[in-house]
Parts: sequence; C-alpha cells; structure tokens
Amino acid sequence: MAFEVTNDSTMKTSRIQDLATAILSALALTASIAHAADPLPSWNDGKAKQAITAFVEKVTKEGSPEFVPAPERIAVFDNDGTLWSEQPIYVQLRFALDRVKALAPQHPEWKAKPPFSKLLSTPKEEHVAVSEQELMEVVMAAHAGITTEEFEQVVKDWIATAKHPTTGKLYTEMVYQPMLELLAYLRANGFKTFIVSGGGIEFMRPWAEKVYGIPPEQVIGSSGKLKFELRDGKPVLMKLPEIDFIDDQAGKPVGIQQHIGRRPIAAFGNSDGDLQMLQWTAAGPGPRFCLYVHHTDGVREWAYDRDSHIGKLDQGLDEATTKGWTVVSMKDDWNRIHP
Amino acid sequence: MAFEVTNDSTMKTSRIQDLATAILSALALTASIAHAADPLPSWNDGKAKQAITAFVEKVTKEGSPEFVPAPERIAVFDNDGTLWSEQPIYVQLRFALDRVKALAPQHPEWKAKPPFSKLLSTPKEEHVAVSEQELMEVVMAAHAGITTEEFEQVVKDWIATAKHPTTGKLYTEMVYQPMLELLAYLRANGFKTFIVSGGGIEFMRPWAEKVYGIPPEQVIGSSGKLKFELRDGKPVLMKLPEIDFIDDQAGKPVGIQQHIGRRPIAAFGNSDGDLQMLQWTAAGPGPRFCLYVHHTDGVREWAYDRDSHIGKLDQGLDEATTKGWTVVSMKDDWNRIHP
Repeated sequence: MAFEVTNDSTMKTSRIQDLATAILSALALTASIAHAADPLPSWNDGKAKQAITAFVEKVTKEGSPEFVPAPERIAVFDNDGTLWSEQPIYVQLRFALDRVKALAPQHPEWKAKPPFSKLLSTPKEEHVAVSEQELMEVVMAAHAGITTEEFEQVVKDWIATAKHPTTGKLYTEMVYQPMLELLAYLRANGFKTFIVSGGGIEFMRPWAEKVYGIPPEQVIGSSGKLKFELRDGKPVLMKLPEIDFIDDQAGKPVGIQQHIGRRPIAAFGNSDGDLQMLQWTAAGPGPRFCLYVHHTDGVREWAYDRDSHIGKLDQGLDEATTKGWTVVSMKDDWNRIHP
Repeated sequence: MAFEVTNDSTMKTSRIQDLATAILSALALTASIAHAADPLPSWNDGKAKQAITAFVEKVTKEGSPEFVPAPERIAVFDNDGTLWSEQPIYVQLRFALDRVKALAPQHPEWKAKPPFSKLLSTPKEEHVAVSEQELMEVVMAAHAGITTEEFEQVVKDWIATAKHPTTGKLYTEMVYQPMLELLAYLRANGFKTFIVSGGGIEFMRPWAEKVYGIPPEQVIGSSGKLKFELRDGKPVLMKLPEIDFIDDQAGKPVGIQQHIGRRPIAAFGNSDGDLQMLQWTAAGPGPRFCLYVHHTDGVREWAYDRDSHIGKLDQGLDEATTKGWTVVSMKDDWNRIHP
C-alpha cells in the first residue's frame, strides 16, 4: 500500500478519488473471495439450493433488469419450524408452562380457570392442546404487572438453561444450521433479514440477535399492550394483561406493513400460518422468492405435515407446490440439521 | 494498487490478511478525511454543537468506558417542529384538509358531522382547532376503503406539489438543514436513526427515505388498522376506518418498544408530545443525549413556545432546562434554517 496516512484536510480531490477507487477494488476483490467459498455448505446441491443462489445472483447483479436496490432487499422468516424446531411443542408454550407453574402459588384462582387449569394439570413433556389465542392469553396474564425490562431478564434467564425434552440440547441449539447459513448469505448480499413470527415479540428479541444475528428492531411477532408509567419517578413500560396484536396468518402481512412498511421480496415459512405472508410477498412486482420448509426427516428431526398437531400445514404445502415456490425437503436438501 | 484481482479460491491466507489490512487502513483514512471537514456546517459553534460532537465522540471511542456498540446506537427524532416546520398548521392536517375536500362530494353526510363539518367550512390558510384525536379520526375516515399501496400513491402525488401557504416552498423544502446534517453525522458514526412522530406512519414513509435518508422500517408513527384480503385473487392490505395506535406523548415510548425493542441512547424533540420519549431515553444506563429544539427565530422561522396553538410546549421546555438537556435556540444555534 502506497498511501500516506494523513489528516491534512486540504488533501487534493484527485487523491481522494484514487483512494475511493482503491477501496472499491479491494472490496470487489473481497467479495470475489467470499464468493469462491460455498456460503451454504449445509445445503446439498439440488433444486432448492440452486433456486436460492440463482435468485440472489439475479437481484444483486447491477445493470440487470431484475436488479433490486439494497434497501428493497427485504427477507422475512417465520421462526417456529422454519428457523428452529417446533416439536414436540412450541418452545414458547413450554416457556409459558414453566412460567405459569412458577407463578401459580401467587394465583390460586388459576386452578379452576381454563386455559390455566389445563396447563397446570398437564405434565411438562406432554402435548397440551391450546389454541394460539389461549396461549397468548396465558402468556399475557402470566406476564402482567412486570416491566418490559424485567420480562426481558426472565426470558434471558429461562433460555440460558431450558433444554429440549427429547434431545437434551438447549433450545438455542435446536436452530437449523442451513437457515443460519442462509441468513448470513442473504445479509452478505445486502438483504435485511426479519423474523415474522406468531410467537411473542418480546419472547424472541432477548436472544434473536445472538442466535440469528437479527437485531430486536427486525423481530416482528405477537404482542401485548404496554403502558408508560413513572414508577417512583422512574419511567417504565408495564406489560398489561391484554393482547395487542396476533402476528399469524392474515396478521403476518399486517405486521410486515406496520413494522417494515415495504413489501418483502423473499419469504420463508413452513405452515399455513405463513401462507398469507408468502402470498403477499409473491404478489409484488419484480423478482420474488418464496420458500416452504417441508419437515420430511423423521430421523434427524421430525417428519410431519398434514396430520400434525403443530398447526395446519395443508394449504401452505399445496399452494407452494401449485405456485412453484421452492419446497425444501429437510431430509434431502439439508446435510446437517442442527449446528 | 498492486493487487491482482483473481477468483482463485486457493488464494493464500497471508494475501487475504494483507488485503484486509489494506482495506482497514484505507477506511481509517477515509474516516479521517471525513472527520477533517465540519460535519455540521449549519450549526454555529456553541454549547449545543459542542454537546452533540462531544457525545458522539465519547460513545464511538473504542476502549473508552462510555463506548456504546454500534447496534445499540439508536437515535429517535420527532418530526413536526423537530425535523421540519410545523407552522402555521401541521402538514398532515393540511393534507387531511385537502383530502377531505377532494372526497367530500362522495360523502354528503360530512357536511353536518364534526369534525368533518369544521374542516369543510374552514378556509385553507386558517388555523383549524382540532385535537390530535379528531385529526386522526378524519385521516382514518378519509382514507378508509383504499389499499396501503393506493394510499402511498395519494401521499406521493400530494407531497410532490403541495406548497407551504406563506413561504410558497414545497413542504419537503421546509425541513431543517441543521437536522439533515445531524442525521447524516449520526449515521456516519454508526447510529441508526428513527422517526418517532405523532403523525401518521403511512403519511411519512412515502417521502422520509428521500428527504431524511430514513427507510420506512425506521419510521414510527400513529396508525390505522389494516386488513389483509384477497381482492379478485390478489392480496391487498385494506386501510380500515379505525385508529390502531396514537404515537404521541406516553405513546412514544410504547411505539419505540414495539418497533425497536431497545431503548434509544439519543432523542430529539420540541414539544410536550416528546417529553415521555425524552424521559425514557434519558433514564437508561450509560451515556445519554437529549435535545430540545426551541423555536426562537421569528424572522427565519416562527418564534413560539408557551402560548402556541401547536400543541403544548411548557413542560418539555421546563424539564429540558431543569434536567440539563441540550436546548437548541434556532435563532442563535443555527446559521441556516431550511436548505
């Protein structure tokens, strides 16, 4: 390098231009080095992987008719079943179970009041049949009367030690390695990655940055109402026992519009809860990418679709097939499931 | 430049390291060039400007006890009166007036129904006394039954030609040049800049990126309810005539938590509507920066505070003074107001 490092503010414009050219060349070279290594090593060569890389190359190629400027490269990901395992029960349902049990002594009335009564009388490992609405009710009630910061700490403490009932791994180790690679690959290509989940927004934010590299402002989820208060002169945000928004099914495009205000060009899901988000993404102008994760691996993960207790998956799978969206078979397309 | 551009994936690690060092040196040099020029030329030297640069230097200095990692450098800005002029009436009120008048022939019932009747019987240039709640009602009703994309186009068309009643400038030319410089300066120092306004989120997003460099996902505002629908098989988001959220006063910290999920370290406002946002920002741990714009320039802009019809400004100004927040006197601290 022949540059002299100087603070001389009178440095000639021509030298600044030389410098800019040098930086751009260096960055282009770095990009070509990154390109040489496979950014998706846990993906087997096949249609799904090819479709992903073809889409990314297409929208990032300047001058091409399908080029998409970086600020418009918005990619949205469902969480449960798309970024991490959702079997045998949603992680957040397990969190709510633990939380309700921990708080039960302070709430004797829960013993007779569904859905609390149902949760309290069910052993941990068993499947509990509650609707998403019921789950949110439980979550809201169990967390009322504490501040957002106190709740963040409760989640951090729980997620640091809570283990999956059958694998014994931490839940944060039950994420999908191929999807971690995909998130990083998209970001390296100028995409902004968002989570758009039916799960609680404040349940995901405390760990999403560390686990997925997704900062809190890019996590969209279901939420409860909040209230600003001065408590002993100190401003706090109290969590109220009231649902504010359910970010699932037809709620997902609404959540996307409220938080992002721009239609995504790529969407990733695995259930009927993601169908409207995929439809909304697919219907925009220009290049679009929709991917549906099909849980086909009964050995390394779980094999389920139409007759699963984990929500409904029929319509999403059918529409993905009909519309030619990219369907990932976990068994065939992924050579590794968890990190 | 002595680098050979190559796609050879077997390139030796030492050469990649050389390259990385070269890029870092070049970037450091670029940073020092940027530093040499005054990033805030429209700010007069004085307490306010010094407070801003001292804060930014402090939180960006690695190794210092007050260093703040880039992802946590969140800065929130009120819009009306903080980033652009709000006199003689809020721009969005003017937009609503024009919109209600344009739609009135289709709504004969509005003639007798307040607040529509009040708006329809008031000449444009005059001040219309409506509460924020009334304004939102009008905005919601006037925009019901159209999609988010149709509304975006209505706003784009309006903002492209609508002019300020006394200066004759486009509204987008009524932004504050010193604040544009401040936004750019903060972003150049790794801050993520957000608008947090009582105004409509979908009224600001169509032009905020072009005017302020703030993308739609970093605009927080008041909002109406949305509904996902398939219209002739095509997914749309319909705007419903129902208020979803008022992002003002105690609503601002709530909006910040819902959208960002992280407490800002810097906040900028000009009225009592911004007070809770400033309090929430100020009360966090570590270095904090709160700035209050005081409208003192009756010649180049408008001089108003306590007895203004533009909301209330008493409590904010008092608290800013008491708590030692940075108070900007537009007359004394800014050598230019509009671009």
